[in-house]
Amino acid sequence: MTGHALHSFFWPDSIAVLGASPDLHRIRGRLLHQLRENGFPGRVLPINPSYREIDGLPCYPSIGAVSDVDLALVAIPAAGVAAAVEECARAGVKNSLIISSGFAEEGGAASAMQAELQAVAQRTGIRVCGPNCEGYYNALGRVATTFSPTVETKEDAARTLVSPKRVGVIAQSGGIGFALFNRGQAADIGFSYVISTGNEVDLTMADFLDYMVEDPHTHAVMLFCEAVRNGPAFVAALEKARRLGKPVIAIKVGRSDAGTRATASHTASLSGSHTAYHAVFRRYGVLEADDMDEAVAIAGTVLTCPPPKGRRAGIITVSGGGGAWMADTLSAHGLAVPALSAASQAALRPLMPSYGAAGNPVDVTAQGSNTGPAMMTVIEHLARSDEIDMLVLVTSLASETRASLEAERVRAVAETCGKPMTVWSYTLPSAFGRASAAGCGLFVHSNLRNVGVALGRLADYADALRRPLPEPFEPLPDRLQPGLPRVVPEYLARQALSAWLPPAQERLVHAEDDAVAAAQRLGFPVVLKIQSPDLPHKTEAGGVRLNLADGDAVTAAYRAMLADVRRHAPHATIDGVLVQRMAPKGHELVIGMVNDPTFGPIMMLGFGGTTVELFGDVVHAPAPLDVAEATRLILSLKSARLLTGFRGARPVDPAPVAALVAALSRAALALRGQVEAFELNPVIVHADGSGLTVADALLTMKPS
Amino acid sequence: MTGHALHSFFWPDSIAVLGASPDLHRIRGRLLHQLRENGFPGRVLPINPSYREIDGLPCYPSIGAVSDVDLALVAIPAAGVAAAVEECARAGVKNSLIISSGFAEEGGAASAMQAELQAVAQRTGIRVCGPNCEGYYNALGRVATTFSPTVETKEDAARTLVSPKRVGVIAQSGGIGFALFNRGQAADIGFSYVISTGNEVDLTMADFLDYMVEDPHTHAVMLFCEAVRNGPAFVAALEKARRLGKPVIAIKVGRSDAGTRATASHTASLSGSHTAYHAVFRRYGVLEADDMDEAVAIAGTVLTCPPPKGRRAGIITVSGGGGAWMADTLSAHGLAVPALSAASQAALRPLMPSYGAAGNPVDVTAQGSNTGPAMMTVIEHLARSDEIDMLVLVTSLASETRASLEAERVRAVAETCGKPMTVWSYTLPSAFGRASAAGCGLFVHSNLRNVGVALGRLADYADALRRPLPEPFEPLPDRLQPGLPRVVPEYLARQALSAWLPPAQERLVHAEDDAVAAAQRLGFPVVLKIQSPDLPHKTEAGGVRLNLADGDAVTAAYRAMLADVRRHAPHATIDGVLVQRMAPKGHELVIGMVNDPTFGPIMMLGFGGTTVELFGDVVHAPAPLDVAEATRLILSLKSARLLTGFRGARPVDPAPVAALVAALSRAALALRGQVEAFELNPVIVHADGSGLTVADALLTMKPS
Repeated sequence: MTGHALHSFFWPDSIAVLGASPDLHRIRGRLLHQLRENGFPGRVLPINPSYREIDGLPCYPSIGAVSDVDLALVAIPAAGVAAAVEECARAGVKNSLIISSGFAEEGGAASAMQAELQAVAQRTGIRVCGPNCEGYYNALGRVATTFSPTVETKEDAARTLVSPKRVGVIAQSGGIGFALFNRGQAADIGFSYVISTGNEVDLTMADFLDYMVEDPHTHAVMLFCEAVRNGPAFVAALEKARRLGKPVIAIKVGRSDAGTRATASHTASLSGSHTAYHAVFRRYGVLEADDMDEAVAIAGTVLTCPPPKGRRAGIITVSGGGGAWMADTLSAHGLAVPALSAASQAALRPLMPSYGAAGNPVDVTAQGSNTGPAMMTVIEHLARSDEIDMLVLVTSLASETRASLEAERVRAVAETCGKPMTVWSYTLPSAFGRASAAGCGLFVHSNLRNVGVALGRLADYADALRRPLPEPFEPLPDRLQPGLPRVVPEYLARQALSAWLPPAQERLVHAEDDAVAAAQRLGFPVVLKIQSPDLPHKTEAGGVRLNLADGDAVTAAYRAMLADVRRHAPHATIDGVLVQRMAPKGHELVIGMVNDPTFGPIMMLGFGGTTVELFGDVVHAPAPLDVAEATRLILSLKSARLLTGFRGARPVDPAPVAALVAALSRAALALRGQVEAFELNPVIVHADGSGLTVADALLTMKPS
Repeated sequence: MTGHALHSFFWPDSIAVLGASPDLHRIRGRLLHQLRENGFPGRVLPINPSYREIDGLPCYPSIGAVSDVDLALVAIPAAGVAAAVEECARAGVKNSLIISSGFAEEGGAASAMQAELQAVAQRTGIRVCGPNCEGYYNALGRVATTFSPTVETKEDAARTLVSPKRVGVIAQSGGIGFALFNRGQAADIGFSYVISTGNEVDLTMADFLDYMVEDPHTHAVMLFCEAVRNGPAFVAALEKARRLGKPVIAIKVGRSDAGTRATASHTASLSGSHTAYHAVFRRYGVLEADDMDEAVAIAGTVLTCPPPKGRRAGIITVSGGGGAWMADTLSAHGLAVPALSAASQAALRPLMPSYGAAGNPVDVTAQGSNTGPAMMTVIEHLARSDEIDMLVLVTSLASETRASLEAERVRAVAETCGKPMTVWSYTLPSAFGRASAAGCGLFVHSNLRNVGVALGRLADYADALRRPLPEPFEPLPDRLQPGLPRVVPEYLARQALSAWLPPAQERLVHAEDDAVAAAQRLGFPVVLKIQSPDLPHKTEAGGVRLNLADGDAVTAAYRAMLADVRRHAPHATIDGVLVQRMAPKGHELVIGMVNDPTFGPIMMLGFGGTTVELFGDVVHAPAPLDVAEATRLILSLKSARLLTGFRGARPVDPAPVAALVAALSRAALALRGQVEAFELNPVIVHADGSGLTVADALLTMKPS
């Protein structure tokens, strides 16, 4: 680990504080103070020509006056930052951390200062974190390069952590990053690092993620993400985390219009498409969280629990109402609470009062919980049962009277059963209750809903670990003919995608007679469609005629269609008329792709008709997808029941659609330099199982 | 209030403790102890022949030895309870509260003991709470008739409550009820009463709700509900609460299979249909909560905030990331975060640093928050702006340094602006931070998501208050002919519902020639349908023929249909063949009713096709509905966009459907003694706006 390029950043032997001050009301003063208060074991070098010493430490007039500096902390006014960092680089300083605000987040001239800072980093090779960040905290190394008041409550050796494993936090908002630390501490979670990344002029979230994923002190990583700046590096770090089995928990803000507006205004970056983020997160098994308490609950769970083999939960409760509520909550989060077998119930029944229940939830009752040995036997039975994959204890940890868990015995079960085990306290857990659960190695949930969220996400993560990652894909060189219009008409779109599409039964014609001849060759019934780069919406322009049964119908339709189009768009360029065999009846799907500026091509899949628009029944995945992933994607649509035999209809094999989606995902990568988006709509899956027809295709080129 | 029948139960002057004991390890001992520890100001009367005195109090040999007892606490073994309560009744005791377990929740012989207890209550008139309950806590009256350890942390006069208003808790699980109290106290909420209702042999949740709704000390009520036992009384109490503007917050468990199983096993009652509960809650503006922290967040919000006039939220934040996240969260919960007008932004811009934002979220930045007066001006501007309906402050209340709110000034704004105002602390709020917000009269949210939940529910509640309640409805006497089969064929179902359905163009025939004659009179095209009480699924039995264009088609179809039906069900009784005019094309809806055992007829409405089954796009409401409520119900469906002009289609007036739903809801009430369910499927709303056709009807009678 000492070999990682960022080792000297997170574990510096010496730290210079530029513009250090004895004034604790100033950020520069607080930085120096907190660094020393937290017991940083290395050299601290205040730099300020106005002082000879600060608080007993010798103070130096300039960075050039000291040597072997691993990290420079910079909190001077923005206008002087670039020059100061350049001076640091000349003095051989390896890393810098810029707390100062007033850069791109302000716009205007301040953006130019940020560009200058970036140029210094690129020219000199000094690494720069920030600007506009709140620094970091390395708990094990006792390095506090931040003014956040949360590190005043520093890692306390006397505190019982729920697990020796630790989580690292990487946040694009310093306030939120250190609040996650603050909340995690209250939940007995151990932290390795907390870093606020600021404007990411040089070091980005991806760099820090790569570091923590390789770091032996970090067992899980939490991200607070407004906008990923380096998509490929970020994805590579996620892939490494997935390969090493290190869970990544992510919060993404900027989903709503107002959230996006706020994010853009204060981080000086676009938050990108939430859909693309979600698709990337899903691919790599990232555990998404919607608020801090969810994130902390998930972290506490992944630090104490192995990924489960399945989704069947066992519940042991001392409160009937609490057990029923837990069953509802787990069920609402995609977990199952199966009734136990008659044999298990017979084994458990004698361990509880007559008004208890052995079915699952297993209600040992408040009285039963007071008889420690019986309770322990119930726990051991369920933990070792092959009828469940995870175990939740529902109890009250508010008072000292209810602590009937035998710590060593529970810990032994939890460590050897190979199943997630966790506790929900329906009363607010007291410090005593928390410590007694931590002594058992169990994470205590105070919030009911988050038990469902955390165990549900853990089960999703376990599923992701079982799926192979897609094979590395070598994109072909771009192969599109030059000079395609921005909106590519169907016949050219099909040519562009021809290597990845099933062959079309169609012909482009320019005269009535040719249309009839083409129809006769293709076989009736046929379809006519106008082809024009000026008419992306052919139907609205009167440019489509369906289900033409013979030559006369084709002639009449051809004439009428051209007249309609001319009337609708007199100046449109007409490339010709496309004659196609009419597709047989079937299920209509939509397959699309949007080339996301951060993550590249994202595939989209849904059923036609109203389900996408009215119910949002649509799924996304980053390209490339293999056929297995495409199949899973199709089957994850609610509408997929239409294919699998809804209301007694004949089931239709999804394999041809999956193969097409997989092929198109390779097309998307091959053409990503030129193509902005495409949409095949509808793709008709024949009801008789005879395959599919791509009935229309639209391609949009990137603006040149 | 002293006039309410339950006044002597909640505010007793004297309490007898049957079987009182000095042993604090026994529940009977704890009861006596907690009663005195909490400072009950009335007479405490231990009853136990084994003692002359307990802990300095004179002890009496039997209940007959004392007089003027308002309440008897009973925690003796189950077998003796009924006799003891009967003795209490003879001694003139007004109320009893049975802590003892071992009644219907155990089944078998224990159920008989419960029946006996119920008989005593009915025969003697003594009121009985429980059995199998945990008692109650009256915080203002200092009456603790419970062994719950949570009341050890009793209401502390020194504690700053967030509001002088108080919430009452009624719980069908004692553990959860007192845990709500425990969590609410930690959130600075004041409580009036907490009661655990147990098996509800006499007094039910509805009785306690009626009491608290009328009680001047209770400003909102929280329910933890497993199964409502007295539906009409419960609905009457909800209606009273709605009329008096007293918010009711409800948690309902037993939604999932496992939750239902658990609920049934430990409360000895059926949890009923969640759909019916939800429909009733929605009608009366009940604020539903899914976990305790949601319930507490909602309670804190309703105790400190007026119902908003609309859904537009303003956000003032000291953290850019926190503000963006709040915007996302409010948007996800049905609230709007509109950009402020240029005039407002111009007014606010000078009050914050150059890297702040005035758009909404208004980001005053951490630095801006340290300048108290500017922050106050921003708050006052937004609180008085007509651009928003509610206001959320995002800040950090972890440390003392960030408390720049001027309590008196904020309180004055909050009390006069007429808008909800609340605070989210992204760090865990400290005791100091909580107290400073409470001093401002503001509820502090620690959980982000619950800000969205609470304000969203409050906005829903405000909507409910603006809607008139349905007019009282006098059901007609049942008017169905006797002897209808369990499954009523369509022609008879239409007769039964004829007073509420549009007249049908149809005729029941028994011969081919009559079918042709009927078709000619009705006009072609027509439909033929077999009518049989043995064939509820006509189509599957081959008993439906659609779109018959002329007499020959009718003849052929009649013959083929009867042959098919005979082959499919040789022994089915055939009442005849129904000839109907074929309905024109249009949007297909389903209108149904299920007569819920707890709440009576619940209407159901959805679109046909796949949307109900695949996407659960279906809504429910209790009968009766007026046309306005029916219209709202239709428009609340996602599929309603199909009627309102989806993809440029011609909009269709929902009024005829709303009128039909309203009429059928009256039918449901009129027939509720006999009818179990009906379903009209499909109801075709003509695409040309010419009205609707009820194309099929199925009626199920209650089993006789």
